[in-house]
Amino acid sequence: MTTPYQLYYWDGLQGRGEFVRLALEEAGVPYTDVARQKKGMPALMASLNGDKVDHPSFAPPVLQAGELLMGQTANILQFLGAKHGLAPRSQDGRLWANQLQLTIADIVAEAHDTHHPISSSAYYEDQKKEAKARARDFRKKRIPKFLDYFEGVIQRNTGRGGYAIGSRLSYVDLSLFQLIDGLVYAFPKTMAKLAPSYPGLFALHLKVSQRPNIAAYLASKRRIANNETDIFRRYPELDK
Amino acid sequence: MTTPYQLYYWDGLQGRGEFVRLALEEAGVPYTDVARQKKGMPALMASLNGDKVDHPSFAPPVLQAGELLMGQTANILQFLGAKHGLAPRSQDGRLWANQLQLTIADIVAEAHDTHHPISSSAYYEDQKKEAKARARDFRKKRIPKFLDYFEGVIQRNTGRGGYAIGSRLSYVDLSLFQLIDGLVYAFPKTMAKLAPSYPGLFALHLKVSQRPNIAAYLASKRRIANNETDIFRRYPELDK
Repeated sequence: MTTPYQLYYWDGLQGRGEFVRLALEEAGVPYTDVARQKKGMPALMASLNGDKVDHPSFAPPVLQAGELLMGQTANILQFLGAKHGLAPRSQDGRLWANQLQLTIADIVAEAHDTHHPISSSAYYEDQKKEAKARARDFRKKRIPKFLDYFEGVIQRNTGRGGYAIGSRLSYVDLSLFQLIDGLVYAFPKTMAKLAPSYPGLFALHLKVSQRPNIAAYLASKRRIANNETDIFRRYPELDK
Repeated sequence: MTTPYQLYYWDGLQGRGEFVRLALEEAGVPYTDVARQKKGMPALMASLNGDKVDHPSFAPPVLQAGELLMGQTANILQFLGAKHGLAPRSQDGRLWANQLQLTIADIVAEAHDTHHPISSSAYYEDQKKEAKARARDFRKKRIPKFLDYFEGVIQRNTGRGGYAIGSRLSYVDLSLFQLIDGLVYAFPKTMAKLAPSYPGLFALHLKVSQRPNIAAYLASKRRIANNETDIFRRYPELDK
């Protein structure tokens, strides 16, 4: 049986694929998580390979939707959001959603670099000293700067429900859930201290986690547990 | 006199604003580079401030188009590309253009981090040792990996003209021009060595530079010279 969507992402970690999974789960559309199937890895690698596909991706996640093959998380979410009622309807709203999603992508990349500030292909242990320095800057300056921004977005939104945009859930809310979730996992002490300053973000995190489709997903085996091969990693020395 | 577009970006550097400037210049539409006007800085800061605007940006560039205010480079280019014939016409083509642009954004962020691997708010001199290590990784692994990818995109494109997509210039080509231009400025030795491996990218760089509107722009005072407050910085110690 083929599903309408095939998601290509590394097995064993949430990573950037998780932002796509959350949208698919909330929309309730069937999808195949290709790399987690038997013989899934060669299929994943083919999606990155220009000899096999017309529009290869630089890196996963990659989503196949019938004839369409697309990469880059924010690009995939823009597509899925429009198709499954997870994006605003107006052009203005769509631009705003995409802008917010790209800003989420920016902090996610910075969260990754806290444990790999020198080289993404070298071991953490070989860049631990630099990781400590970068993580300190991330905790003290970057997390507050980004969360101030996103909290302001929620607080200024005049729509009801505590969402980022209007009065309806969008893919941006799902991604903000994942961002807060990941930051709390990786930096529990820092986030415990910061939480009171961000009531809108933490309320949104709770609200998203309680949506029926998301709650069922989080309780299922499809949700991969946080771990130290992921973007958000819990290294106590980076959360002092 | 008001122009159809107002661009908000820091004065004194090309930065991410340059990707937007190149699209506006190629399209030949009048725009105001707000921060370079008298009293432009307060206007720029207001575009980032949620007390002043409904959709503030986390960081410049910000583009105002009548009532619309939008941030994030790839988001702005998606808008301008569709409006001024600088994007493919099909949905498939638009997704592909956006995907490529987001991949360009990824290497641009990594280029920035070669001189600021620990903290974007600290001095380069205070993270020079780490910068050398990160730049080495960038030169040896990341530049080739990204350029292999983009060269493959151009080589596999069956359209005529040597563009990234189809047989017509798109905003992706303008951004690839700027990427190559910046890398050559920042890493002249590295790029001189790599150039023969990337004939498609270097031919595209030349071709874009010779387009009438772009050539006129590059020769004008509107094009800010490369310098060491920018994303692409020429520090000889990072290009060994």
